[in-house]
Amino acid sequence: MARILFTCAYDGAPYRGWQSQRGGQTLQDTIEEAMGRIVREPVRIAASGRTDAGVHALAQVFHADLPESCRMSAENWVAALNAHLPGSIRMLAARYVSADVHARFSAEGKVYEYLICRDAVLNPFLCGRAWHIPHAFSEELLEAALRVYVGTHDFRRFAARRGNEPEPPPPGFYERTIHAAELQREGQGMLRLRFHGNGFMYRMVRMLVGTAHQVARGRMTPEALSAMLLDIHAPKTRFCAPAEGLYLHRVIYPTQLK
Amino acid sequence: MARILFTCAYDGAPYRGWQSQRGGQTLQDTIEEAMGRIVREPVRIAASGRTDAGVHALAQVFHADLPESCRMSAENWVAALNAHLPGSIRMLAARYVSADVHARFSAEGKVYEYLICRDAVLNPFLCGRAWHIPHAFSEELLEAALRVYVGTHDFRRFAARRGNEPEPPPPGFYERTIHAAELQREGQGMLRLRFHGNGFMYRMVRMLVGTAHQVARGRMTPEALSAMLLDIHAPKTRFCAPAEGLYLHRVIYPTQLK
Repeated sequence: MARILFTCAYDGAPYRGWQSQRGGQTLQDTIEEAMGRIVREPVRIAASGRTDAGVHALAQVFHADLPESCRMSAENWVAALNAHLPGSIRMLAARYVSADVHARFSAEGKVYEYLICRDAVLNPFLCGRAWHIPHAFSEELLEAALRVYVGTHDFRRFAARRGNEPEPPPPGFYERTIHAAELQREGQGMLRLRFHGNGFMYRMVRMLVGTAHQVARGRMTPEALSAMLLDIHAPKTRFCAPAEGLYLHRVIYPTQLK
Repeated sequence: MARILFTCAYDGAPYRGWQSQRGGQTLQDTIEEAMGRIVREPVRIAASGRTDAGVHALAQVFHADLPESCRMSAENWVAALNAHLPGSIRMLAARYVSADVHARFSAEGKVYEYLICRDAVLNPFLCGRAWHIPHAFSEELLEAALRVYVGTHDFRRFAARRGNEPEPPPPGFYERTIHAAELQREGQGMLRLRFHGNGFMYRMVRMLVGTAHQVARGRMTPEALSAMLLDIHAPKTRFCAPAEGLYLHRVIYPTQLK
């Protein structure tokens, strides 16, 4: 078998998320089926992480182990897969790697972006691709909330349960480091929130954005948000931003990845 | 009855074109149904022109005659319709006009834009929203072809039959004036072709783009294109660019429109 690492982009709107499930219509099922048609045997792929239904990717990464019998160049794999996939999923790059490289476990960090549109009316071409917030809020308070998140924290109040957590969790289980959380203003009422971290738990970015929005609306102070982050006994946040504004922007690997 | 003129934008991908048809799923049917739910009686609307299945609009214009009994401000009409329509159709503006104003017959001109993406791989967020041309062609020849179109010409070789043409056509029936046909280069391999004219026949912009692309590929010289345009006995062009790259950008009305 030869391991190959793919980078792909997708519009998440037509899919029920990354993770394979009964009934299909997921990104994993769609890509595995296309690969299976090429190699003529079942293929399993492993992503850097799942994305929820409606979440997009500009550069998701996954690996697959392919039989030596259908060895072709990485460039040809990109072209062949694109020929078999719908236009809403595009392979961007591929490379052969050694068998100890893993799309998820070798990743050092991720960058997510979250799009917010402040226009009174949401452009139909952004429908399903941004969170439309026509009501008033403070961009300064939004930035203040984002600054609270930066650093190494126990983010358990900002993660949804997936049902597979160990009980009790080992020390540091919910700890993540956010290297940067920035707001970039784009033209025409668009805001881009950029999160760079060493890892994000299930729904974490959406919960960070949803809670920061509460601060931006003046319903919670940045100090209260900070207190909530430091108190591991505080209840989980109830605020989760919609999936459609979220983009997996990049998965970061060590430069010496072979 | 009070006549109201609406400006709207839509993503044409999920629709079978503007024109109402049996089975619905057209823009006209969807908007008429939403208006009907608001005024509680059937409503008919008239657009500046039809757009084909898959064609988009940034500012389509249509009018409707609404019963005086449900008179509300133009702003409220915009909000009410947006509340009843899917996010792929958005009302942008509305104004009450006199009964002699007609979305189609009062129009003085139109601007269409056509998007071409030259990237090797089409970004999934442009799928259905641009013509993907990864093969080589000359942008200089494309511009030369566009220059041929500018002016007042008999464009019958660049229009599809709709079946309702008079036979024989009266003089000037196929004559249109193209004020400008320009190529704008955008970042990241995107080209925007902009057509401003006093009117466009059925499929005309797509046929202009499709034929200009033949010139750009070196399969026809700009001189041959010019000869084809001047010879009204030449056969119709066989080249029609895909619907998904086309955007109705603006409908132009006299400034004194009341």
